[in-house]
Amino acid sequence: MSRRLFPQPLDLANGRVDMSHGAGGRAMAQLVSELFAAAFENDYLAQGNDAAMMSPPPGRLVMSTDGYVISPLFFPGGDIGSLAVHGTVNDIAMAGARPLWLSAGFIIEEGFPLADLARIVEFMAGACKACGVPLVTGDTKVVERGKGDGLFITTTGVGVVPEGLHIAGDAIRPGDAVLVSGTLGDHGIAVLSKRENLDFDTDIVSDSAPLHDLVAAMVAAVPEIHTLRDPTRGGVAATLNELANQSGVGLILQEAALPIRPAVRGACEMLGIDPLGVANEGKLLAFCPAERAERLLAVMRAHPLGRDSAIIGRAVEDDRRLVQMETEFGGARVVEWLNGEQLPRIC
Amino acid sequence: MSRRLFPQPLDLANGRVDMSHGAGGRAMAQLVSELFAAAFENDYLAQGNDAAMMSPPPGRLVMSTDGYVISPLFFPGGDIGSLAVHGTVNDIAMAGARPLWLSAGFIIEEGFPLADLARIVEFMAGACKACGVPLVTGDTKVVERGKGDGLFITTTGVGVVPEGLHIAGDAIRPGDAVLVSGTLGDHGIAVLSKRENLDFDTDIVSDSAPLHDLVAAMVAAVPEIHTLRDPTRGGVAATLNELANQSGVGLILQEAALPIRPAVRGACEMLGIDPLGVANEGKLLAFCPAERAERLLAVMRAHPLGRDSAIIGRAVEDDRRLVQMETEFGGARVVEWLNGEQLPRIC
Repeated sequence: MSRRLFPQPLDLANGRVDMSHGAGGRAMAQLVSELFAAAFENDYLAQGNDAAMMSPPPGRLVMSTDGYVISPLFFPGGDIGSLAVHGTVNDIAMAGARPLWLSAGFIIEEGFPLADLARIVEFMAGACKACGVPLVTGDTKVVERGKGDGLFITTTGVGVVPEGLHIAGDAIRPGDAVLVSGTLGDHGIAVLSKRENLDFDTDIVSDSAPLHDLVAAMVAAVPEIHTLRDPTRGGVAATLNELANQSGVGLILQEAALPIRPAVRGACEMLGIDPLGVANEGKLLAFCPAERAERLLAVMRAHPLGRDSAIIGRAVEDDRRLVQMETEFGGARVVEWLNGEQLPRIC
Repeated sequence: MSRRLFPQPLDLANGRVDMSHGAGGRAMAQLVSELFAAAFENDYLAQGNDAAMMSPPPGRLVMSTDGYVISPLFFPGGDIGSLAVHGTVNDIAMAGARPLWLSAGFIIEEGFPLADLARIVEFMAGACKACGVPLVTGDTKVVERGKGDGLFITTTGVGVVPEGLHIAGDAIRPGDAVLVSGTLGDHGIAVLSKRENLDFDTDIVSDSAPLHDLVAAMVAAVPEIHTLRDPTRGGVAATLNELANQSGVGLILQEAALPIRPAVRGACEMLGIDPLGVANEGKLLAFCPAERAERLLAVMRAHPLGRDSAIIGRAVEDDRRLVQMETEFGGARVVEWLNGEQLPRIC
């Protein structure tokens, strides 16, 4: 798009998004050209068509999509833009896949400051670069003031699965070990503390991070991994219940083995919520045959994003498909699958 | 997901979406299982993972995404659900590609009637079936009352480009003929009439339709096609200005050749808007060498979605990259690239 079309550059310092920025005309072209295309610059976007064209590597492909409606848009340890990259990269990685391409759809509320949009786009473009995954195509819509909430982003990712891998939610077998890649609940508590202006003693920051590189190391060392999943919305409790049902097994956790930061544990106690129900955005659960668990743990701990990894439980035969927790005092309780409305808009 | 998890089925007649339906717990699982998975049923969704896995055919892939924020959600000739399928299928088809897979992200406002959601999902699933394109993965988020506007949908499509085709926005050459596949402005005027409760003399309905089958016939007969694009937001005026800039050519239209329904022309006159600035959702513009134009026109007219096709102009050398219209009285005027804020939320 030739610059002479837009006599005045966008006012990124003081300007605001208006309805014309989503209406398909000259103003939208300027926003796309001066803000989005400039930040995400790559050969695919430079094609300038409504669809980007790519040559895929050989192998099976995976595709995943997620909408991001997190409130607030900026939170300790992250922002909606980098989260929208990490979250979708992680969903691709949970198939054992290498992420190849991302797309993004922006739904912006009229009046949203261009300066905030520019910051978010910069963070998002930085996350794409850090992940090595180009944003190949995108879309912008604007809704009237009061019909949105600042900014929603929907990202979609496509990735390729290495030969020989068969990682899926229905593949957990009785006897499998359950591993987690680090501390639980950091993201949800960080977002909640910012949203509600809570003043916890220590600084809790989101764990938002891309896990594809950790996964690549894991599957290279232990291709026998049965299942991977990131415990986002609904936390570990929802994810484990979902997987127990999908695989038709029971799951038993050791309470003492769960890595939870004292600050997060304290915040959860204060708020009266279970850390197992709190969202994570840079952690994964892994299931593998018990005899491979120590090797997998060692590989995970050797990675910067898996330093606090732990073996936290095992899969068992159980027609009721219950998730249970063995407490430190020798008892056991069922880990409920909550409705989760206590923590809305956490991603 | 086993049904026994949800003792009460969703109340699709009188229920409403609440925050728990987006929170990652049991309520969300029920909504996904009983509404989305039931309607879109296919082998990919049945995999039940956050990412769907597919084996692509050989060839280059294209990827495109669009957010749909149309208001109202139901309009003459369509609804947001089928539109979200057609629009993205069409963006894929404009690369000459065959659409393979779709994903969808739903952002729902708290309190939205489940009955409306179910209707929209049914229309959307019907459109997927009619297009032969499965929805392989999806996501649901819920925002508080007053932070959205009923329903927004973002769809992403992946398609495969047949060997030997090189269709792109920068490929128009001076001398090319410009064709359109039918009447202009129907979608925008249909949506506007419903939204503003305008009572036009005749019933104008949206042209929302999937164009991939028409495109397949076109590229089979005339593989020399240089460029295809669907004139959606901003209408023909915005699309032609965009393409003129991308290809570095001028474009000259013949006013008398433009197919516009009298009812649409009348409505535009009444509203004081130019039909060339009004959105279409089932029309395409095609550019091909002049000597192949008659053949292409015949193929387009032979297809049910191209019956009213016409040759409407030509590309010329023009460093200014202007789009001009030759009027019926022998004059010429520049077709402006409007900001387009006169028709917000048209898709």
